[in-house]
Amino acid sequence: MKINGIHYRTIWPHPSDERTIRIIDQRHLPHRFVVEDLVSVQDVFTAIRDMHVRGAGLIGATAGYGMYLAALEASDSKSIDECIEKAAAKLKSARPTAVNLSWAVDKQLEAISTGTSAREKISIALQTAKEIADSDAEYCRRIGEHGVMLIENISRRKGGKPVNILTHCNAGWLAFVDHGSATAPIYAAHDKGIAVHVWVDETRPRNQGAALTCWELGNHGVPHTLITDNAGGYLMQQGQVDLVIVGSDRTTYTGDVANKVGTYLKALAAYDNNIPFYVALPSSTIDWETEDGVKEIPIEQRDPDEVKLVEGWCEDEVKKVRICPENTPAANYAFDITPARLVTGLITERGICNAHRDSILKLFPEKQKR
Amino acid sequence: MKINGIHYRTIWPHPSDERTIRIIDQRHLPHRFVVEDLVSVQDVFTAIRDMHVRGAGLIGATAGYGMYLAALEASDSKSIDECIEKAAAKLKSARPTAVNLSWAVDKQLEAISTGTSAREKISIALQTAKEIADSDAEYCRRIGEHGVMLIENISRRKGGKPVNILTHCNAGWLAFVDHGSATAPIYAAHDKGIAVHVWVDETRPRNQGAALTCWELGNHGVPHTLITDNAGGYLMQQGQVDLVIVGSDRTTYTGDVANKVGTYLKALAAYDNNIPFYVALPSSTIDWETEDGVKEIPIEQRDPDEVKLVEGWCEDEVKKVRICPENTPAANYAFDITPARLVTGLITERGICNAHRDSILKLFPEKQKR
Repeated sequence: MKINGIHYRTIWPHPSDERTIRIIDQRHLPHRFVVEDLVSVQDVFTAIRDMHVRGAGLIGATAGYGMYLAALEASDSKSIDECIEKAAAKLKSARPTAVNLSWAVDKQLEAISTGTSAREKISIALQTAKEIADSDAEYCRRIGEHGVMLIENISRRKGGKPVNILTHCNAGWLAFVDHGSATAPIYAAHDKGIAVHVWVDETRPRNQGAALTCWELGNHGVPHTLITDNAGGYLMQQGQVDLVIVGSDRTTYTGDVANKVGTYLKALAAYDNNIPFYVALPSSTIDWETEDGVKEIPIEQRDPDEVKLVEGWCEDEVKKVRICPENTPAANYAFDITPARLVTGLITERGICNAHRDSILKLFPEKQKR
Repeated sequence: MKINGIHYRTIWPHPSDERTIRIIDQRHLPHRFVVEDLVSVQDVFTAIRDMHVRGAGLIGATAGYGMYLAALEASDSKSIDECIEKAAAKLKSARPTAVNLSWAVDKQLEAISTGTSAREKISIALQTAKEIADSDAEYCRRIGEHGVMLIENISRRKGGKPVNILTHCNAGWLAFVDHGSATAPIYAAHDKGIAVHVWVDETRPRNQGAALTCWELGNHGVPHTLITDNAGGYLMQQGQVDLVIVGSDRTTYTGDVANKVGTYLKALAAYDNNIPFYVALPSSTIDWETEDGVKEIPIEQRDPDEVKLVEGWCEDEVKKVRICPENTPAANYAFDITPARLVTGLITERGICNAHRDSILKLFPEKQKR
């Protein structure tokens, strides 16, 4: 999407130097826009581990390019296969729980293995890395294409008045290669000239809504307003929300949605006020094994200091302030589960379906268990 | 309640100097414990206006003592009645929307007017100020006495295992003279030796939960854990919450509850998980006129900078950090309405009733409209 009118992806090969991959170093957002050059497997490893890049789609794409850099590094020696195997293990260990990371590395391993010379392996690795990134962007674009119809319908019903959409956390283009998941229908609508306005939940404790979603939407020119996570219920009570769209970290094939903590509260409020609640997701995040999300999906507990300390811009640098007494115990649950009964529908790259086993399997018939 | 084992109120006359009133200057909490001496009407005015004291009950009590200081100041001149009238108008203007403020000032005006000499007026004013403070503390104590039964019942059912109580914002003793409203049953249970544990919502944007409720509970020795406002729904899904108790800024006689924004979301989650949701309130905050809280109670919009900037402790002083891009628009709705249908019951100084017109009027029959 756009930054100051110029189209960016979150990762791209350097236009004049094939041995360099560029990323937006997201650690500095929203306060500074920093482009970082990655020239080695070590650079890629650090960028993934230390969250210069984050988000399932983008982590996968970055790992894909990391394997290309591995092939480049290895080409100087005779032992290219060994070098590539070593890089694969190293990259996979950067964020062990990121499913797309292993998936991208394995895809590269398979592709590269078909090359017969170092030169060919490098060429295949670059091609595959580009394909992984392109297909991530393309899946998100399709989510936008399907989801925009929901916004168009509401816009028509409202006689063209702005459609108010609430979103939680950052399921934006910064988490993917382009478009994002929850934001894809919003960008698609905006780019088509449909008037939209986004309520952005700040999304404590890490404030990805305030820091990343606001930055994205502002740069692309989409009207939006930052609110506290507490405010969405009130806005829905007052008729100020037409539609909720969130992303998902994992969705069971029965329609239960694991997403950033607080999502469930918004789903409850949407349900109570008869407001459509949609979840946008590439099908790679569907869990085809788990039946009961509330009971079975384990929820990560993160560092309590993320709750006690808030990071932001102060006196020309990033600082952290403590909002509670020093010795206060805190707990930091990262996700919650929104039960399928509260979800109006899922927006996938293949279309929109109900948050229900039959409807999901109708879109993905190849997943039907024999 | 207690600070380091010593019993405090939020306001008290100086033990050895009758012309001085002491308060906890709450602007410095939780980072510094500062006791401030108020010796003039101007001091009291500033303390109320600039929120050295806050919370309905405490504002009323402070204004009561302010009128006593007015009588003291006036006694040096002949024109005591004029001085008192002037002080009354000044104090009322410090926080124009605080109902308890006018109420306390008017109560003092009436009481003082019965005095026949300057000396008698001063004596009446001091007596009345003490009565206002004592009755605020006593009403909260009774709320605790009634509410503790709910906690006792759950404790019995759990075989003495800690009762997990979730609360939102600060309806604690810092908002009153002592005990608090939502916290009164919690302190009563703890002081009776019933094991309790409190989940404290941080309560963005002003973080009164993180800053004040955690400080209170920690100082009194009540086990508690700070969480983000987003986390309560997950905890309820996982059976980690036995009871929710919140305060209220205004409750309609039909049972709709206006309280700090985000309360409604917790009520929805409690309802969805079959967890009792109680509102603790002195009856002075019941609105005997308004029938439909959701439609009729106006909600204050506050400074958007409270959303964009987070205040906390950093490098040995209080600083503010900005969590979003500089030009991001933000909205700051201060309260929401929890509809009566989501409220299990109201805990008042006269006992517990349903959040329903008939049940409320049964406790307060004198309010029955003729």
